[in-house]
Amino acid sequence: MSIPTTQKGVIFYENGGELHYKDIPVPTPKANEILINVKYSGVCHTDLHAWKGDWPLPVKLPLVGGHEGAGVVVAKGENVTNFEIGDYAGIKWLNGSCQSCEFCEKSNESNCQKADLSGYTHDGSFQQYATADAVQAAKISKNTDLTEVAPILCAGVTVYKALKTADLAAGQWVAISGAGGGLGTLAIQYAKALGLRVLAIDGGEEKGELVKSLGAEVFIDFTKSKDIVKDIIDATNGGPHGVINVSVSEKAIEQSTEYVRPCGTVVLVGLPAGAVAKAQVFGAVVKSVSIKGSYVGNRADTREAIDFFERGLVKAPIKVVGLSELPKIYDLMQQGKILGRYVVDTSK
Amino acid sequence: MSIPTTQKGVIFYENGGELHYKDIPVPTPKANEILINVKYSGVCHTDLHAWKGDWPLPVKLPLVGGHEGAGVVVAKGENVTNFEIGDYAGIKWLNGSCQSCEFCEKSNESNCQKADLSGYTHDGSFQQYATADAVQAAKISKNTDLTEVAPILCAGVTVYKALKTADLAAGQWVAISGAGGGLGTLAIQYAKALGLRVLAIDGGEEKGELVKSLGAEVFIDFTKSKDIVKDIIDATNGGPHGVINVSVSEKAIEQSTEYVRPCGTVVLVGLPAGAVAKAQVFGAVVKSVSIKGSYVGNRADTREAIDFFERGLVKAPIKVVGLSELPKIYDLMQQGKILGRYVVDTSK
Amino acid sequence: MSIPTTQKGVIFYENGGELHYKDIPVPTPKANEILINVKYSGVCHTDLHAWKGDWPLPVKLPLVGGHEGAGVVVAKGENVTNFEIGDYAGIKWLNGSCQSCEFCEKSNESNCQKADLSGYTHDGSFQQYATADAVQAAKISKNTDLTEVAPILCAGVTVYKALKTADLAAGQWVAISGAGGGLGTLAIQYAKALGLRVLAIDGGEEKGELVKSLGAEVFIDFTKSKDIVKDIIDATNGGPHGVINVSVSEKAIEQSTEYVRPCGTVVLVGLPAGAVAKAQVFGAVVKSVSIKGSYVGNRADTREAIDFFERGLVKAPIKVVGLSELPKIYDLMQQGKILGRYVVDTSK
Amino acid sequence: MSIPTTQKGVIFYENGGELHYKDIPVPTPKANEILINVKYSGVCHTDLHAWKGDWPLPVKLPLVGGHEGAGVVVAKGENVTNFEIGDYAGIKWLNGSCQSCEFCEKSNESNCQKADLSGYTHDGSFQQYATADAVQAAKISKNTDLTEVAPILCAGVTVYKALKTADLAAGQWVAISGAGGGLGTLAIQYAKALGLRVLAIDGGEEKGELVKSLGAEVFIDFTKSKDIVKDIIDATNGGPHGVINVSVSEKAIEQSTEYVRPCGTVVLVGLPAGAVAKAQVFGAVVKSVSIKGSYVGNRADTREAIDFFERGLVKAPIKVVGLSELPKIYDLMQQGKILGRYVVDTSK
Repeated sequence: MSIPTTQKGVIFYENGGELHYKDIPVPTPKANEILINVKYSGVCHTDLHAWKGDWPLPVKLPLVGGHEGAGVVVAKGENVTNFEIGDYAGIKWLNGSCQSCEFCEKSNESNCQKADLSGYTHDGSFQQYATADAVQAAKISKNTDLTEVAPILCAGVTVYKALKTADLAAGQWVAISGAGGGLGTLAIQYAKALGLRVLAIDGGEEKGELVKSLGAEVFIDFTKSKDIVKDIIDATNGGPHGVINVSVSEKAIEQSTEYVRPCGTVVLVGLPAGAVAKAQVFGAVVKSVSIKGSYVGNRADTREAIDFFERGLVKAPIKVVGLSELPKIYDLMQQGKILGRYVVDTSK
Repeated sequence: MSIPTTQKGVIFYENGGELHYKDIPVPTPKANEILINVKYSGVCHTDLHAWKGDWPLPVKLPLVGGHEGAGVVVAKGENVTNFEIGDYAGIKWLNGSCQSCEFCEKSNESNCQKADLSGYTHDGSFQQYATADAVQAAKISKNTDLTEVAPILCAGVTVYKALKTADLAAGQWVAISGAGGGLGTLAIQYAKALGLRVLAIDGGEEKGELVKSLGAEVFIDFTKSKDIVKDIIDATNGGPHGVINVSVSEKAIEQSTEYVRPCGTVVLVGLPAGAVAKAQVFGAVVKSVSIKGSYVGNRADTREAIDFFERGLVKAPIKVVGLSELPKIYDLMQQGKILGRYVVDTSK
Repeated sequence: MSIPTTQKGVIFYENGGELHYKDIPVPTPKANEILINVKYSGVCHTDLHAWKGDWPLPVKLPLVGGHEGAGVVVAKGENVTNFEIGDYAGIKWLNGSCQSCEFCEKSNESNCQKADLSGYTHDGSFQQYATADAVQAAKISKNTDLTEVAPILCAGVTVYKALKTADLAAGQWVAISGAGGGLGTLAIQYAKALGLRVLAIDGGEEKGELVKSLGAEVFIDFTKSKDIVKDIIDATNGGPHGVINVSVSEKAIEQSTEYVRPCGTVVLVGLPAGAVAKAQVFGAVVKSVSIKGSYVGNRADTREAIDFFERGLVKAPIKVVGLSELPKIYDLMQQGKILGRYVVDTSK
Repeated sequence: MSIPTTQKGVIFYENGGELHYKDIPVPTPKANEILINVKYSGVCHTDLHAWKGDWPLPVKLPLVGGHEGAGVVVAKGENVTNFEIGDYAGIKWLNGSCQSCEFCEKSNESNCQKADLSGYTHDGSFQQYATADAVQAAKISKNTDLTEVAPILCAGVTVYKALKTADLAAGQWVAISGAGGGLGTLAIQYAKALGLRVLAIDGGEEKGELVKSLGAEVFIDFTKSKDIVKDIIDATNGGPHGVINVSVSEKAIEQSTEYVRPCGTVVLVGLPAGAVAKAQVFGAVVKSVSIKGSYVGNRADTREAIDFFERGLVKAPIKVVGLSELPKIYDLMQQGKILGRYVVDTSK
């Protein structure tokens, strides 16, 4: 396979600066890296935060964003043993970690203090050829649809891990706050695959129909409910055993600590820049509630999340556009006008 | 053993009303109850909340408070099979539960919606003879010092359960916020018995010496530290794996979510009337932090907490006074002037 | 509701002695008991062991067997608060426990040393009216089909608990050894409800079709496989993560320790009188295999197992006959000629 | 630091063949390896198995054995970032793993199908200079006594992991079968550090005094007990919650499944060539017993086991001899005459 020396990519040179769709050099993989010919890449809200520089962690500059890339291995470093040329591979948020700290040793590599992040501290998947640490790169089976698997690599893994963090048993209720969005729709499907009963929270009839079509048993419309805490407790005969806060509204998070079932778990999964999670201490103690932060997923979570996808149990509703249109998608995200998940085709 | 028909007790007729030390009738045990000749009873901050009516749960009125009573079984109902006359028994916060709800079935009886609470919804241990549900009453070995075991029945069980809730492994660090108080000093000793390394947080040199004498490896003096979050992270080489918030300060709780180690657990254990626990969502997610409410302990926790005490591994510093002096102790509690744990002798 | 003083039941007076279908007195519930008008009762292999006296635990004599009884509450003792007259209730293997030992305290009441067993140490469900400890009796929702729920009360709970004991995550493989029998067919359905992938092991094409119709992805026919260990490892890409040994064959159990995936769990669930489980120490250590005994289930397991049934996710294939025909069913069981689960109608 | 080209080591060319103490080349570290100047190495029974070829896994030939090496990093490959020249490092049983299989992803790297084993498939620590995979090599703090830390690297980690596998809570009883030997004496000390109560099983008064001096509360002398199962159950008021079978006697293992407490765990940790673990199915099920194989430990276990040692909580009784005397030690091991742990000084 011949690898070109230049390629198309979207790059920016300063936070909030212009997003250039242009010719950039094809990177060379290090000894421990693979070079992936990225075919498709999902676009995530995190990409917007990275571009704007919203978070306390500084980004690499200039930067090629993107961390949901699906493609084909076209080259590999001399130490790589777990990928062959021609294999399908995925770029995900965690590009690499130190592999020897206390977090990496216990498979909590997302919490590694030296974590290297795709599309943030390492050039990501908004280009035709991207490097990835072979140990962390996702394995994707041949014959998998690369368009559809792309959003699984971050959105899918993230909600799947959040559900695992909630530590629920099949047959229990999980509430998904923000169920009609990109993460929420995936969360519903993973929850069903885990044998959970889903109560979906979002606003509007259209969302209600969507979440029910995906398997939610109950839909709570926050635009109509007069007492959302009571309605949720009633609908689940005592409150959901777990709550996945895909929504990052402070009020929604605080409410979730109230309607969750005693001994239940509230999971925080979004990364709003300055939001605060609040809970009444008295209620949290008397009800023995847990509030847990869940941050992407590790390699095992990724393998499992992809496996559910490949077995046909989850499917993200996506819209495919050319990579050249990425700046427009950033615009839409900034305006809060995104519905569903965009996937860019790097060939266009 | 002859049981009198009247006895001395401390009773109040309305929230915040006068605390009467007077003759009251000796209660008769129901079929499932034992009658305990209470010898000693600890005094807990919760007794003050019950008297004042601070909490959303209404108390029984008139009420005999107290939920740390240690004594001897002098009578029992016809269905009681697990206690014999002459056995030592303890009165604890949870007097009884429904035994058949989903929480009771899973040994989370503290979370039972029909929980009956000693010194709150059921007359407690501030009297010479008190009834207790036999299934929930604590078993105390013969030869145990009834004065010293009293505070174990609530304070001891509460901090022991909080440590279990933190879900730590021997060799890990636990921070105890408010380590020099009644709960804190017990928490240090239980933590040591569990093989944990203890960082104690409190104010003043006297507290520092106390906590170190009990086994704390590190003392952080909040009256001297200029950056408590940094100091704690440094002293524990990355932050404690768990934090027990015996202190109910909102600021201390929020700080604990910042200095806790990634993947660590912050435990809320106190019951301040209106306080709010706050955490930055971004940090909680990226560090995968858990915040958990811990509410007293179940029967197994009680058995274990008493076992550690009986094996000589924990000991509460106590001051013994007569039951007739209880109103003065309430005064001291209200003024925040209590140091250590008071135990009342019901014979005086 | 008028309760008669005599009723029809099947009783025996000595181990292996005649099974009499005859008039016997209707028992009176104690203070903590309910009286159930048993409509239907499943027949379990354990009933045969009880009658023959196969096990080291002596049975009550004379004895009315049966521990899968479904019916209606017609009377209750004075201390019963969790059942009302007219409620549906189920009789299960564990009739009662001491409620205060270390096992009961941790919801392991099946392991209570004073466990009282229906149809073994307490007259069971092979009669029209049976008493049951209210705390342990199973709650069954109104409108539930009492014929079909009967086998859930022991067979269903047993395999559900065995699956929980295997401690598997959705998406993992479970092998069910003896998948085509009464327990096995339920195990397949519960496994599917938990999100597991099922490999079913049994003999013959008919069994193969049955297990596949219930959701097994793979069928291994032990009458045809030349290397069952290898075939199972190949079919599951490394061995199943868990194995449920419904079959009590010693050879099948030993093989299961060989084909189970590294870090996987082999569950023993049957109660053959003298069988021995064997495993190569070397392999068990190097593969870090767990072998776990699973014994019926507790109240929470029972509630959950019934909930899956009531939600339509599991259904036992049953044959209904009159209670008067019970002796014939014992004959068939003894001859090993039982296919599926028999349920007796106590009115016939 | 100047590194020689030849060194002293003990090498053999065929299973059971002569053990040569001779000059051999100093190996060169690969990109991902460190070169350790081994100062001391423990001698383990596994080294004897490797030399004799007892196990189904073939060894590398010729082979330098040894997998408990403690020394100083003198060189490192270009990709190594977690060790610096001059750091202390340890060679342990698992030299390396694939880092990308399902077992490595979940920190079960000992179960990796491509595991590379020190002194078995990779030249080990019975030489002055040995290579080790940097990701797996143990980190040892400066100022640690390299003589005494050596046996921690395999024996210590192995028993520590076995205790973790038993999944006990502080205050519970653990029985250690074979408590007076090299592994057993370490197991007692780790158990104490975890807050466990220790019942030690071995033969003879001398062993009894030894195990008590290390912290065992109870000693059961199998040369004197007439009913070891009963004696152990009595001494622990119902049986130990966990059992560590350091002894590899088949009879001792079977007995441990009988005296273990209901709901308890029996751990298998030794690697006898052909032994079989047996358990009565009936008892294992009714008592809900778990039998678990435990295989060395992962990197986190190693870090923790060393930390307990460095904090002074465990100490192996050792005898130090020159590396040149290694063949004599093999002789002693073969004759079963080893008491305690030998450590070889590679400089002699």
